[in-house]
Amino acid sequence: MSNKTKRFILSEEEIPHYWYNIQAEMPNKPLPPIHPATKQPLKPEDLYPIFAEELCRQELNQTDAWIEIPEEVREMYKYYRSTPLVRAYGLEQALGTPAHIYFKNESVSPMGSHKLNSAIPQAYYCKKEGVTNVTTETGAGQWGAALSYAARLFGLEAAVYQVKISYEQKPYRRSIMQTYGAQVTPSPSMSTRAGKNILTRDPFHQGSLGTAISEAIELATTTPNCKYTLGSVLSHVSLHQTVIGLEAEKQMEMAGEYPDMVIACFGGGSNFSGIAFPFMRHNIKDGKQTRFIAAEPNSCPKLTRGKFEYDFGDEAGYTPLLPMYTLGHNFRPANIHAGGLRYHGAGVIISQLLKDGFMEAVDIPQLETFQAGTLFARAEGIIPAPESSHAIAATIREALKCKETGEEKVILFNLSGHGLIDMAAYDQYIAGNLQNYSISDEELAASLKDADALNT
Amino acid sequence: MSNKTKRFILSEEEIPHYWYNIQAEMPNKPLPPIHPATKQPLKPEDLYPIFAEELCRQELNQTDAWIEIPEEVREMYKYYRSTPLVRAYGLEQALGTPAHIYFKNESVSPMGSHKLNSAIPQAYYCKKEGVTNVTTETGAGQWGAALSYAARLFGLEAAVYQVKISYEQKPYRRSIMQTYGAQVTPSPSMSTRAGKNILTRDPFHQGSLGTAISEAIELATTTPNCKYTLGSVLSHVSLHQTVIGLEAEKQMEMAGEYPDMVIACFGGGSNFSGIAFPFMRHNIKDGKQTRFIAAEPNSCPKLTRGKFEYDFGDEAGYTPLLPMYTLGHNFRPANIHAGGLRYHGAGVIISQLLKDGFMEAVDIPQLETFQAGTLFARAEGIIPAPESSHAIAATIREALKCKETGEEKVILFNLSGHGLIDMAAYDQYIAGNLQNYSISDEELAASLKDADALNT
Repeated sequence: MSNKTKRFILSEEEIPHYWYNIQAEMPNKPLPPIHPATKQPLKPEDLYPIFAEELCRQELNQTDAWIEIPEEVREMYKYYRSTPLVRAYGLEQALGTPAHIYFKNESVSPMGSHKLNSAIPQAYYCKKEGVTNVTTETGAGQWGAALSYAARLFGLEAAVYQVKISYEQKPYRRSIMQTYGAQVTPSPSMSTRAGKNILTRDPFHQGSLGTAISEAIELATTTPNCKYTLGSVLSHVSLHQTVIGLEAEKQMEMAGEYPDMVIACFGGGSNFSGIAFPFMRHNIKDGKQTRFIAAEPNSCPKLTRGKFEYDFGDEAGYTPLLPMYTLGHNFRPANIHAGGLRYHGAGVIISQLLKDGFMEAVDIPQLETFQAGTLFARAEGIIPAPESSHAIAATIREALKCKETGEEKVILFNLSGHGLIDMAAYDQYIAGNLQNYSISDEELAASLKDADALNT
Repeated sequence: MSNKTKRFILSEEEIPHYWYNIQAEMPNKPLPPIHPATKQPLKPEDLYPIFAEELCRQELNQTDAWIEIPEEVREMYKYYRSTPLVRAYGLEQALGTPAHIYFKNESVSPMGSHKLNSAIPQAYYCKKEGVTNVTTETGAGQWGAALSYAARLFGLEAAVYQVKISYEQKPYRRSIMQTYGAQVTPSPSMSTRAGKNILTRDPFHQGSLGTAISEAIELATTTPNCKYTLGSVLSHVSLHQTVIGLEAEKQMEMAGEYPDMVIACFGGGSNFSGIAFPFMRHNIKDGKQTRFIAAEPNSCPKLTRGKFEYDFGDEAGYTPLLPMYTLGHNFRPANIHAGGLRYHGAGVIISQLLKDGFMEAVDIPQLETFQAGTLFARAEGIIPAPESSHAIAATIREALKCKETGEEKVILFNLSGHGLIDMAAYDQYIAGNLQNYSISDEELAASLKDADALNT
């Protein structure tokens, strides 16, 4: 690999000035979210009690393809952006594949993941609108850490509900949030009505993103001057994350290539949307034929085995009804280590794009993700987050197909975060104590029953 | 801070082609290491049984100021270099200081610290000379992780002795090393004669870098085709680390400034040498008056309260006699969380430079380092390693002096690593369970007795 460039980095001036809003250019727009009480399509004002107003407008904006990044947000992006685009020569060699593999390394953010890309603008708009407190949920803790830091940057107080199983499996993410000054509560907790109801039904409930979202929304709507923020699923989060793909587009140009495939792991859709949408734009508008592959856990298979229908975004039913691929809002994901992927639904934009054939999805068993993550660590040095290892596993599957066919395809995947806080999981993998989880059609149908009822 | 550049990054072509060997330009050369049996000055050949031969020659090279970085090593440096030079606007604002604070962010390496800068060339030279196995010691685990990965890059087997107290305090560093495929043993262990002797004297010995070095050297000298490697103290390690300062020099030029002070934490000297020597060159040759400040724990105060004399580098006395500032080779450092700074001696180059007044040292209590680290995390987003927090604490002291005098001094410090694997320590700090340690003059004198005897 002598004299070949390995890492491509943009100057600060080249950090994007606009986010890309794919809603404005989709052939079929997403169906509207519906107000559960009135059954009417949601208007931005309906969301004002929960989110900062500008975020509500971004959420439902289907007309402006480019939305300007506020200068204050761009200044904060400079703390860690651009992130490097890396040619994975080491991984290519380890696999013996003719494919050219690139990854966008979002793990270099101080929080270790892509989550800060949306935490910064969300905290910024809250501050600008006079909010003093923000609240949120977090799974693995990546989003909670990012929001805690972003809140600190803008002088806001942060309260985070962390999914109980992750709170226990990954205690140091709690310490990270506390180091940034946030208050952290394991969810379900007794501090909200939603949490109490869940614990009354099941005192040993391990929590899920759905339960934690319910608690955070309840806190936001019952506390003065407090807004809720979310790290994935919503359209404005996907919007902010497009800095990833917009940078990658310029960096792929520096490398003189264009991706045949773009791959990312999938929980609620934030990192997938971020890297995929700017490239998908060229499929929609310029006749490019790039494949977009979302990699989800086979124990939480909303894209590959879920149903497209209206459902709640949270366990308690506090959110609007969203048109999306879902496993049912009271689906209980298995206790896999990829905590950030343990969510029952997909965002409304992604759901429409999947329905319309603009993207594909694959589901990956837990052990394959750890095997892929360990191979990647030994080849490229970076220990990936268990979430990101889903993207790596999908990439390896495609790269090995290229090895069989001899095709020099260009694969770009998003390394959404590193796994340095997830070493307990690697420890269990090394010791042979990790397992796969499967889920039967009957279990899926049962879990969808409540959602189905909402659609009659 | 609008429109001000925050991060300065070099292109791959600008990564240095040469390491800087300060030995060749020091007004007073370091005194020679002495063979403990013959009492004669050491020749490179005397070290061949322990280290790769090229490393032995680099160790004692007092004539060549510039040593070419092999192309294969430069290619591996591209995996993470250049590291960013960052203007710490957030920290300046938090302190209200007129000082301009910059830090070189070595935490962005996949291993989370600067250690890879020397692990790569050490593994490279071993491989080139036909070595198949490498062994080493590690404290906090930063060096062990770096060597494990570098060994994997060049297809070598790695065996690491980890200081027992760190092995227990930071279990996930062990998992990181194992993920890269290394064999990890807590030291002192029963697997070597040196370890057995130590445990016989004290079954509850918590280990130190000195004990682990003894065990690793013994394994190297009793195993065919196996060499020992070291992450600090030695002159060839300092040599490799000068990529830090050489990059920083170009990056400070990009920023249009030159440092009045260069600050780094100090264990054996590797990251301090790395950032300081390229700038110190201009004090020696060009009349610059930059201050160089090494920040050490006040519980392991070799530079501020140690004695300049010949001493062993390890507990068992396997190394040559080195002319250095030392606390005695059987000094037992307190169980502070900055495991990488728990070493009794300084490198021979550093010791001569300190003696000759080219640099200064300060000692910092543990609680002040965590206070500084937490302040830095909230201001700049990065949670620093407890080792690096010593440099931050020293920087804050100087920045607050500037606040008093109103001077706009330029301070550059090295952020040698992040603290994401050290969250247990932050956890204890947040809970109020950390303490300071002090050490009396009598204890110091007693610990130096054996070393004193070697100098009569």
